Amino acid sequence: MGVTALCHYSGAPALLAFLCAAIAVALLASLVGRSVEQLGDRFGPGATGVLQSALGNLPELFICLFALRAGLVDVVKAAIIGSILANLLLVMGLCFLTGGLKHGTQKLDSNRARAITVLMVLSVAALVLPSLASYVHTPASDHEETLSLVASVILLLLFMLSLPASLKKGSTDLSDANHMPGEPPRWSLATAVILLAMAAGAAAFVSDWFVHALEPAMAAVGISEAFAGLVVIAIAGNAIENVVGIQLALRNQSKYAYAVVINSPLQIALVLAPLLVILSQTLGYAAFTLVFSPMLVVSVAIAVIMSAFITFDGESNWIEGAALIAVYGVIASSFWWG
Amino acid sequence: MGVTALCHYSGAPALLAFLCAAIAVALLASLVGRSVEQLGDRFGPGATGVLQSALGNLPELFICLFALRAGLVDVVKAAIIGSILANLLLVMGLCFLTGGLKHGTQKLDSNRARAITVLMVLSVAALVLPSLASYVHTPASDHEETLSLVASVILLLLFMLSLPASLKKGSTDLSDANHMPGEPPRWSLATAVILLAMAAGAAAFVSDWFVHALEPAMAAVGISEAFAGLVVIAIAGNAIENVVGIQLALRNQSKYAYAVVINSPLQIALVLAPLLVILSQTLGYAAFTLVFSPMLVVSVAIAVIMSAFITFDGESNWIEGAALIAVYGVIASSFWWG
Amino acid sequence: MGVTALCHYSGAPALLAFLCAAIAVALLASLVGRSVEQLGDRFGPGATGVLQSALGNLPELFICLFALRAGLVDVVKAAIIGSILANLLLVMGLCFLTGGLKHGTQKLDSNRARAITVLMVLSVAALVLPSLASYVHTPASDHEETLSLVASVILLLLFMLSLPASLKKGSTDLSDANHMPGEPPRWSLATAVILLAMAAGAAAFVSDWFVHALEPAMAAVGISEAFAGLVVIAIAGNAIENVVGIQLALRNQSKYAYAVVINSPLQIALVLAPLLVILSQTLGYAAFTLVFSPMLVVSVAIAVIMSAFITFDGESNWIEGAALIAVYGVIASSFWWG
Repeated sequence: MGVTALCHYSGAPALLAFLCAAIAVALLASLVGRSVEQLGDRFGPGATGVLQSALGNLPELFICLFALRAGLVDVVKAAIIGSILANLLLVMGLCFLTGGLKHGTQKLDSNRARAITVLMVLSVAALVLPSLASYVHTPASDHEETLSLVASVILLLLFMLSLPASLKKGSTDLSDANHMPGEPPRWSLATAVILLAMAAGAAAFVSDWFVHALEPAMAAVGISEAFAGLVVIAIAGNAIENVVGIQLALRNQSKYAYAVVINSPLQIALVLAPLLVILSQTLGYAAFTLVFSPMLVVSVAIAVIMSAFITFDGESNWIEGAALIAVYGVIASSFWWG
Repeated sequence: MGVTALCHYSGAPALLAFLCAAIAVALLASLVGRSVEQLGDRFGPGATGVLQSALGNLPELFICLFALRAGLVDVVKAAIIGSILANLLLVMGLCFLTGGLKHGTQKLDSNRARAITVLMVLSVAALVLPSLASYVHTPASDHEETLSLVASVILLLLFMLSLPASLKKGSTDLSDANHMPGEPPRWSLATAVILLAMAAGAAAFVSDWFVHALEPAMAAVGISEAFAGLVVIAIAGNAIENVVGIQLALRNQSKYAYAVVINSPLQIALVLAPLLVILSQTLGYAAFTLVFSPMLVVSVAIAVIMSAFITFDGESNWIEGAALIAVYGVIASSFWWG
Repeated sequence: MGVTALCHYSGAPALLAFLCAAIAVALLASLVGRSVEQLGDRFGPGATGVLQSALGNLPELFICLFALRAGLVDVVKAAIIGSILANLLLVMGLCFLTGGLKHGTQKLDSNRARAITVLMVLSVAALVLPSLASYVHTPASDHEETLSLVASVILLLLFMLSLPASLKKGSTDLSDANHMPGEPPRWSLATAVILLAMAAGAAAFVSDWFVHALEPAMAAVGISEAFAGLVVIAIAGNAIENVVGIQLALRNQSKYAYAVVINSPLQIALVLAPLLVILSQTLGYAAFTLVFSPMLVVSVAIAVIMSAFITFDGESNWIEGAALIAVYGVIASSFWWG
């Protein structure tokens, strides 16, 4: 925190300030994630799942809320979709590439991976339907906010319905895929609760700073709002998933790596995006609806269908990883121009 | 019939008359289905398949034809797509939900289910291609009727080619999935033929009445033509598949439930829709082409891709069922506004 | 060559000249393919793969380059997509149809087929992304050439990365699927090299002639540029894959047939199309970008998703073959009108 504070209060140029903020966000996101995991271990794997679903995206939620308060609606929309793309294409591609180069063809076919994938595809479909209705179905485009609200309520309802099942360890348990085996709890209950509270508070503070640092940095580098949200924020927000996934892939635990990576877009579609719709209307911030720009919808549709085919393939190798990164590269390039 | 006749000739309000007509249609659809099944049992399972393919959609065909005669082209188009959506999302979702809550994770992976799914996806692709050509390929949009006719002839040809294979029990047998095991024939041949003829005749009569009751009911409730076709008619027309599918799922026969549900969209794409194109032109009714509104095409594409992923997953649980119903809910909401 | 020369210099009508040119192209494509295979056998299966990837599409590359020099950009774009469609729908449909009628349900599920399919889907996605960005993302549509160049460089990089792996026989070996078992080398090294050089030279000559014969033939028959590229050139260019695939399917070697057919679209997306983008800009021919007309993108998306579902089904029968041909028929019909 000393270094980041230094950046904040020194006269460092806009880009450096933003980089510091991004690193601070990533570190706090990691701390929130670890506190949630340690806390969950006290109550069993089901509770971990519930806590992770509810609190794991807390730093991203703060960033998006502060950005909405600052009126950066297009940045937030791009960041939501960009986060799904970064997980399904970039992080997954890096996992396949590093894991494949070290261990050859890796298996990833487990019943759980396929069940999570089907749910992820269904949730993302519900997430983008208001966009599609708004583009091509004239009567619905006049009711964009209502339709987004209906879809958000349906998605959150689905999430809440799935919570009781997650509390019992079972086959319908969606979220405890994040829980890696063989990692004993090391923190005391008090430590975990206190660290979680502190990390959450700090995340709120740092997110505000991150959003303030974003606009000067965008101006300094001259990148578009869409590119900033889609690539920069999405990669900063998913840095930890990235590192964890690659570590697991290098340890040849590709099944766990895959479950971690595929679970994140599910949480975004099922919790984060619907919550933002409801909170932005409740708090009176800039109206955030589920009507994304067409290229975002096209990109996420391609990413979701690709990753479903990869799950059903059941094997990965490094060339598939390289191809996923290639698709991500082409999509990111499309958004380069403002 | 006494009750329905009562509704028809009494001064009951528009909505009640429509509800009576809808129930009468559903009951007659069930009677036609059972007569066809009983008749088919006399000639072996292959013949059942052929008869069901040819006659099973008779009530829906009558409704659509009478609606076209009344000039309700948009209602019919929405009803065709809505029928596919209702089967693939709503009925399948209810099967997974009820079956999953009672029996936990259910298996549905059989070679037959996957073969039917592949054919269903291919047929629906051929069905929606004229729409896509009409939106995005300017030269084709001037020849919408010719292109629809070409696609319809190709689809019906494909259906007729598949009939001889259905007559022999074999692996390419598409339709006898409807035939549940352990249900002995109980009706005599004469009973089956007479009941089928009567049911078909009554279906024609009741369909006419259903269409007449539809317009005042739409006006009374204030729903749009698209919503009436997509949701109301589609659910009324598939009430029986709904009940049968859920019963099978509750009896833990999820493989049969799945085959029943996935077979219906195949029949619609392969027989019902192409037949309507040809009959509407032959009989001089309002021109029915295969150019559906874009939101209908988008919705059916999502539904078809979802259900293919679910088939290839090979397992279902109640949360997947809830997610399917959620996607159906968002699609239906999009069509609420006229 | 005597016959083709005769056609060229006699006063035969436009259509006959074009047919002669098409047959000559198909024969030379076959000769190039066989020379490459014989040459590769000297150096092991890995080298065959590399040579086939690099040289196998040589005749198609010549045709496209000469057509671009003649300014026929739309014909070339349609031919690129048409070649993918012809392989995935028509050739595959004919393989399933003939193989299925002779041998019943055929298995095609091998790990290799699924790995190639996933790569093919990813490459085609990267290939069509610049088109999608150009239609729906306004800022990108002003930078169509740059974005196409970026995507082409990424695709060629992916291809070059995969070459070293292809040189070692291994599980990531993409291309040696073309190598059928039990066919001993019969030509000497010198014969193979000389024949390859001669065939390549003749292919360049004949391709030039083919492009010159195309325009009068199009005018004579009155077909549109899109139809000529999508159907006529694509079928002429893939005549050999067609014959080889059907022969393998009839010999009940459906796994090999499938790998041959699915490998061709991968090569087109990974090598042929990106090379055309770079060469057309380097040689100063008519600018060829990766922005295809929307109906081409829609058709290729449907074909790619269909064939992925079929690969993951793992079985084929003749009705699936007929349905694939039906989808091809509807797509080809859409492009009939200019």
